[in-house]
Amino acid sequence: MRMLSMATAMATLPLAALADPLPSWNDTGAKASIIEFVESVTDPASETFVPERDRIATFDNDGCLWTEQPVYFQALYAFDVLKEKAAEDPAILSTDVLKAAAEGDMETVMANGLDGLLEVINVSHANTTVDAFQADAYDWLTTATHPTTGIPYAEMVYQPMLELLSYLRDEGFTTYIVSGGGIDFIRAYADEAYGIPPWQVVGTEGSTSYAVVDGVPQLSKDGGITFVDDKEGKPVGIIRHIGQRPIFSAGNSDGDFAMLEYTTGGDGARFGMLIHHTDAEREFAYDREGHIGTLNRGLDEGPGRGWTIVDMAQDWARVFPSD
Amino acid sequence: MRMLSMATAMATLPLAALADPLPSWNDTGAKASIIEFVESVTDPASETFVPERDRIATFDNDGCLWTEQPVYFQALYAFDVLKEKAAEDPAILSTDVLKAAAEGDMETVMANGLDGLLEVINVSHANTTVDAFQADAYDWLTTATHPTTGIPYAEMVYQPMLELLSYLRDEGFTTYIVSGGGIDFIRAYADEAYGIPPWQVVGTEGSTSYAVVDGVPQLSKDGGITFVDDKEGKPVGIIRHIGQRPIFSAGNSDGDFAMLEYTTGGDGARFGMLIHHTDAEREFAYDREGHIGTLNRGLDEGPGRGWTIVDMAQDWARVFPSD
Repeated sequence: MRMLSMATAMATLPLAALADPLPSWNDTGAKASIIEFVESVTDPASETFVPERDRIATFDNDGCLWTEQPVYFQALYAFDVLKEKAAEDPAILSTDVLKAAAEGDMETVMANGLDGLLEVINVSHANTTVDAFQADAYDWLTTATHPTTGIPYAEMVYQPMLELLSYLRDEGFTTYIVSGGGIDFIRAYADEAYGIPPWQVVGTEGSTSYAVVDGVPQLSKDGGITFVDDKEGKPVGIIRHIGQRPIFSAGNSDGDFAMLEYTTGGDGARFGMLIHHTDAEREFAYDREGHIGTLNRGLDEGPGRGWTIVDMAQDWARVFPSD
Repeated sequence: MRMLSMATAMATLPLAALADPLPSWNDTGAKASIIEFVESVTDPASETFVPERDRIATFDNDGCLWTEQPVYFQALYAFDVLKEKAAEDPAILSTDVLKAAAEGDMETVMANGLDGLLEVINVSHANTTVDAFQADAYDWLTTATHPTTGIPYAEMVYQPMLELLSYLRDEGFTTYIVSGGGIDFIRAYADEAYGIPPWQVVGTEGSTSYAVVDGVPQLSKDGGITFVDDKEGKPVGIIRHIGQRPIFSAGNSDGDFAMLEYTTGGDGARFGMLIHHTDAEREFAYDREGHIGTLNRGLDEGPGRGWTIVDMAQDWARVFPSD
């Protein structure tokens, strides 16, 4: 019976005791605060224990799980698709923003903020089925390469965040993406890249319709945005899709402020995390100003609210899996 | 080591072999077809084996998991709330439909079809937080009683369907509700009644907003319907929330036709089920005509499409848990 006892003992050892669950995180305060939080909600003897059912963690995507510079990858994809579509039918370039986008003039598009991007996405991602769109997006993400690193976009995910997702899931958490990006686009690769299945992806939604075409049931993307999952929209996306307040949220811009505020405003142990892009050498350095991912209120108020600010240059031993 | 071997053998025996998983189903064709389908997709040696990840089952709620007569329970709740609100502020009864509803004149409201009901729900379910709304709905569902049976609405769930939900989950399925009813209303009791957590409930959605009120983050129901999860809206709700086609769908009215069509239109083994309300004695008998739950196309085309039509009077040994 001795072998049985040993096997039982091995099976009940927490995984964290066997190996470092976050090897790409330096031994700084950020890593310690993550592990301290996870242990405090998973230890049944802890006063702040949370049952598995309620261990919900939500993650922003752009700039939190993967790179968002020089501009959101979905926008770069939309520019490429728009260019292809315009070659077939130039009439679709009906506005200055669309004309600029087709010429790759990102500055003009971004001068119109999120609205400019949505205009491009709206035209380029319409009149296709959800299935065809996702197959095309997946193909682009795994073959087109990033202008500064030269690696495929799908590989520009953050290794430390992959480890954090796995660590949380190993500890009984359910991990969700809650992104301002398009829900269909993220779902095209989230399972493969992050181990997050489609039903755990919340994002911006476009008008979608169902019809039987030539005997085949189809879901089509019709153009037009029906829900923007950004800023105050993120807690709304959470309540629509998850129906329950998370206990852990991670983001990197003020577009995530409301999500972290909502998450950490609940009772019991809560964790808010903001990735601060401080690493111009290995990735990009930006925060208070810029065309994307601006972070002001989070830096000003986050620490006072007990949120963990992750300093990419200091806290991460590695950025991309290929590093 | 003998005891260990026995324990191992017991642990690997499928649950179905130990006991009838569907004791409230009579030994008729419907029960046999359910079990045959489940075995065909869960047996790794089967040609139509489906991995657990893809065993997605969707269920309509009203008339499929619980009673929907004399009218949707959510409508009865909305009538009660409207009456209370009108006592405080009669000015909210600004239309003939609202006036009729406050007087309990269901016929006038239903003469306007789903639009009439939505008008009542829209006014009665607005200007409250999601949390407060769900607490109030839960209270009503567990204390108010049904006009014909005299039991609380929350107990008018179908025992055979509770067994089916459990059976599917035991066999590695994930069970979702996909209902024309309000998502917040269903979530108020779905976990307790069906073992279905909030994130596995898809339904009609109202306008919701996030704000910090007196320092407390709140999600509020603002009135106005943003998404109707009925008819062709059901496959749309599925792709928005689940992001993947189910392999099993159950419903009871032509509002479920598109969902079953979408589900059974995929490759491999698929299961479509329609509950036919044939039991005037134990529940209600209705199908082709009436103010609610009409079933025409499903009866005409369902059998030809291989869908299983469940005859409530013939196929169910028991209707409610209290029977």
